[in-house]
Amino acid sequence: MIKDVQNTPDKRNIALQKVGVKNVETLLNIERKGSKAPQRVYAKAKMSVYLPSNYKGTHMSRFIEILEEYRKKDLIGVDIKKMLEDMKLRLESKSAYLKFDFKYFIKKKAPKSALEALMCYDCYFEGTLDENDVYKFFLGVKVPLTTLCPCSKEISDFGAHNQRATVSLKISYPGDKHIWLEDLISEIESCGSSELYSLLKREDEKCVTERAYENPKFVEDVIRDVVIKLENNPVISTYEVEIEAFESIHNHSAWAKQVSTT
Amino acid sequence: MIKDVQNTPDKRNIALQKVGVKNVETLLNIERKGSKAPQRVYAKAKMSVYLPSNYKGTHMSRFIEILEEYRKKDLIGVDIKKMLEDMKLRLESKSAYLKFDFKYFIKKKAPKSALEALMCYDCYFEGTLDENDVYKFFLGVKVPLTTLCPCSKEISDFGAHNQRATVSLKISYPGDKHIWLEDLISEIESCGSSELYSLLKREDEKCVTERAYENPKFVEDVIRDVVIKLENNPVISTYEVEIEAFESIHNHSAWAKQVSTT
Amino acid sequence: MIKDVQNTPDKRNIALQKVGVKNVETLLNIERKGSKAPQRVYAKAKMSVYLPSNYKGTHMSRFIEILEEYRKKDLIGVDIKKMLEDMKLRLESKSAYLKFDFKYFIKKKAPKSALEALMCYDCYFEGTLDENDVYKFFLGVKVPLTTLCPCSKEISDFGAHNQRATVSLKISYPGDKHIWLEDLISEIESCGSSELYSLLKREDEKCVTERAYENPKFVEDVIRDVVIKLENNPVISTYEVEIEAFESIHNHSAWAKQVSTT
Amino acid sequence: MIKDVQNTPDKRNIALQKVGVKNVETLLNIERKGSKAPQRVYAKAKMSVYLPSNYKGTHMSRFIEILEEYRKKDLIGVDIKKMLEDMKLRLESKSAYLKFDFKYFIKKKAPKSALEALMCYDCYFEGTLDENDVYKFFLGVKVPLTTLCPCSKEISDFGAHNQRATVSLKISYPGDKHIWLEDLISEIESCGSSELYSLLKREDEKCVTERAYENPKFVEDVIRDVVIKLENNPVISTYEVEIEAFESIHNHSAWAKQVSTT
Repeated sequence: MIKDVQNTPDKRNIALQKVGVKNVETLLNIERKGSKAPQRVYAKAKMSVYLPSNYKGTHMSRFIEILEEYRKKDLIGVDIKKMLEDMKLRLESKSAYLKFDFKYFIKKKAPKSALEALMCYDCYFEGTLDENDVYKFFLGVKVPLTTLCPCSKEISDFGAHNQRATVSLKISYPGDKHIWLEDLISEIESCGSSELYSLLKREDEKCVTERAYENPKFVEDVIRDVVIKLENNPVISTYEVEIEAFESIHNHSAWAKQVSTT
Repeated sequence: MIKDVQNTPDKRNIALQKVGVKNVETLLNIERKGSKAPQRVYAKAKMSVYLPSNYKGTHMSRFIEILEEYRKKDLIGVDIKKMLEDMKLRLESKSAYLKFDFKYFIKKKAPKSALEALMCYDCYFEGTLDENDVYKFFLGVKVPLTTLCPCSKEISDFGAHNQRATVSLKISYPGDKHIWLEDLISEIESCGSSELYSLLKREDEKCVTERAYENPKFVEDVIRDVVIKLENNPVISTYEVEIEAFESIHNHSAWAKQVSTT
Repeated sequence: MIKDVQNTPDKRNIALQKVGVKNVETLLNIERKGSKAPQRVYAKAKMSVYLPSNYKGTHMSRFIEILEEYRKKDLIGVDIKKMLEDMKLRLESKSAYLKFDFKYFIKKKAPKSALEALMCYDCYFEGTLDENDVYKFFLGVKVPLTTLCPCSKEISDFGAHNQRATVSLKISYPGDKHIWLEDLISEIESCGSSELYSLLKREDEKCVTERAYENPKFVEDVIRDVVIKLENNPVISTYEVEIEAFESIHNHSAWAKQVSTT
Repeated sequence: MIKDVQNTPDKRNIALQKVGVKNVETLLNIERKGSKAPQRVYAKAKMSVYLPSNYKGTHMSRFIEILEEYRKKDLIGVDIKKMLEDMKLRLESKSAYLKFDFKYFIKKKAPKSALEALMCYDCYFEGTLDENDVYKFFLGVKVPLTTLCPCSKEISDFGAHNQRATVSLKISYPGDKHIWLEDLISEIESCGSSELYSLLKREDEKCVTERAYENPKFVEDVIRDVVIKLENNPVISTYEVEIEAFESIHNHSAWAKQVSTT
């Protein structure tokens, strides 16, 4: 019989909070708003369990086995809590952690021509299940948008510098509630000077150019508007939000960050 | 006179925790152990201040002005606390945040030939100064090393898979203490199956190969040995440590993370 | 009517070889060996056309329109040549260029347990259609594998350093021929000291450890073995191959590159 | 005596064009225009030699030894040709290749306030020495600048979308000529709608905003203006130039590429 080195006792008396695997490329099923067919997406998994002080190592291959089983049943991404329970059970651990970073596509209509094209968003699902079986779920998303500088507009005789910016958001909410990525992304996009689109014809380009100019915003303005939406959303328990604007007049970024305090 | 849009009042009643700049490329002076001449290093700065609810925006250009002044006096990197004080003062804010990610070179001798060559480490200095003028400093470093799998060694008739791994460490300690990067890096390197070197002749390669084989370690072993060193260091107040091993038999990583609990 | 600035004449008398879009995230259909159902994959598109000297600009939105049409017909990735023809036609240009970088998943069985799990490969399709309607197609793939150092094995009393390495290959072949990604990847994987797998149980880990130890290879050995396979493949017209080994004893890579000369 | 595995004969009869090391972090000395003191910069080296068919492997450690020697003499970066000659000699090869990617800082004055701050540019030196001792040198640089869309300006009642763009240039020129990075960068910066700066006060921001608005340019315009400068420079033998604009209204880039044809 092949020896199980991981199961040998460890004498350093140090329990480890998180031991597992990272950057495991896989495919998830993501439920979509207003569609019965889920979206199959490219994802990277990070999975870990707690390791008691008396065990030398965890069994890394079991993480991959669990991933594969859920994938075959088309369940990865759909039931984070059940996966965490399986991880605790099969790795004989008292707590588990799971994160899927994934690429999610949403069809988006141009503002005037109404032509439709895909936009892709970097999203993540993150879940923890602790020693008391308390489950926590976090939803993350990066939303690109336009910021047009109010100062530049005010002080210049014409024009105003503007640029692409990225809002990075992480929220938590109770396990019995649900927030659609489609809704969350759309709310954040409405906080920029303008939204981004993949396909814009000339009439659309005129529209987004003028909209941005009429709606100048610092990173401070965008993050405040996002915070107001998050604070007013009765479902959201906690949030962390960050904005980085890739300034068109500098080679560095303007940046702001806010974390909910309650 | 040009209007100061940033100074106009904001009515959303939301104070922002961090507003500033990110990815500002600059040059730092880093003091070196055992050398009077500091090392001039490539760095990226992240700087922010608190923004009260009644101000529309901060003055982003002042961050760059402060950076430039400290650079001209050869002081960037040397006096983080003073920079934070200047940031609070000149941006009229009650708290300030500062981070420098930088590339630090250390000469390292091969174990047998004693030939010397540079190794480069990703490091950071991070500091905060709060509304009560309480200063906190964090030192971060990424240390590459070798892990050789104890399970693979035990179950195989010959050989054992091994790979490069990275230990990422963040520590804090009181403002009146000092820890040299040279010492910290050397302590972490001693926790791997073997250390890495830039220049190895054949006699050295024999030495590190055999050392790794005689010293097999899971990511769990490495992180526990690092944790013991950190816990036993009377200067260190808090730590966060993570290890990622770029497995030579998988296309994903083995991974572990530990955060001090006191 | 909205003015078409792109169509205004340009007086600099410089025709441009490639003008278009880059980093357009989209979804491709990839045909799979031994399966009627294609794989829908995450991709980034790069598309361009030739711009005659008398035109000021190209019509960037048409690239996105073509992408969307092919996506709706489930044809992106399937008919590169037809897309290039459409690009030439609809952008009124004499030559066109197209590249899709994508993530392709293949199920792979562990060598002993025969347990199956996904492996993901970075691939690309690249095509050009010139002014004489000559079509060229290039297939690219990055294949990770293990290299175990022959020198380290020879000079050490026990063990041998080994690491993950990546073989990057670009090939071309006539438009009337076909090469499956599955076959190409499998051929390259056979050239390492061992292959990589996502899921390995202990019996598998013993197998790959011993296989690598019995099969030591420098980057020079791997690239020569790949070159022999490419030279012996009657379908392949041209190739470029590169290997980078993330040395487990250094913080830099060993590296080799070869380009076909005929 | 320790066996020299690399020196054993290889029977596959395949000579390799490039065998060496990659991603070796080091420090270079770069001569500066108008200053006797060189700039010490962070760099990554890529070095290779030709490997005859009858040798199994090259001696990777010699590349690092050469780097270290040149570094100690403060010569890395200063004498690329001599390094290539030493590589050929000491690795007993008939041709050699060398590339240094590095971060180069230049002080830049704001257009109105004349305040000075550092800008950092990604640059590279690349050299080859062939079997006939013919030396070729390539200089590479990435220059960020602003592009303001002429179409958006023309069709909109006010404003115009603009964004950061990067011009990537690679040039070659005869070994007896010299081109300063400072001059090359400044020429490219003059081709955008506006230049970027690290430090801008309000009067400067007004200036660059208006300058960009009065000077709208597609990526096609910028690359044509760069091409004209390159074609008119009597020193430059060959060039490759690419521009990527990180569109503020899209989440993808506009892109153009031109390669000299003579």
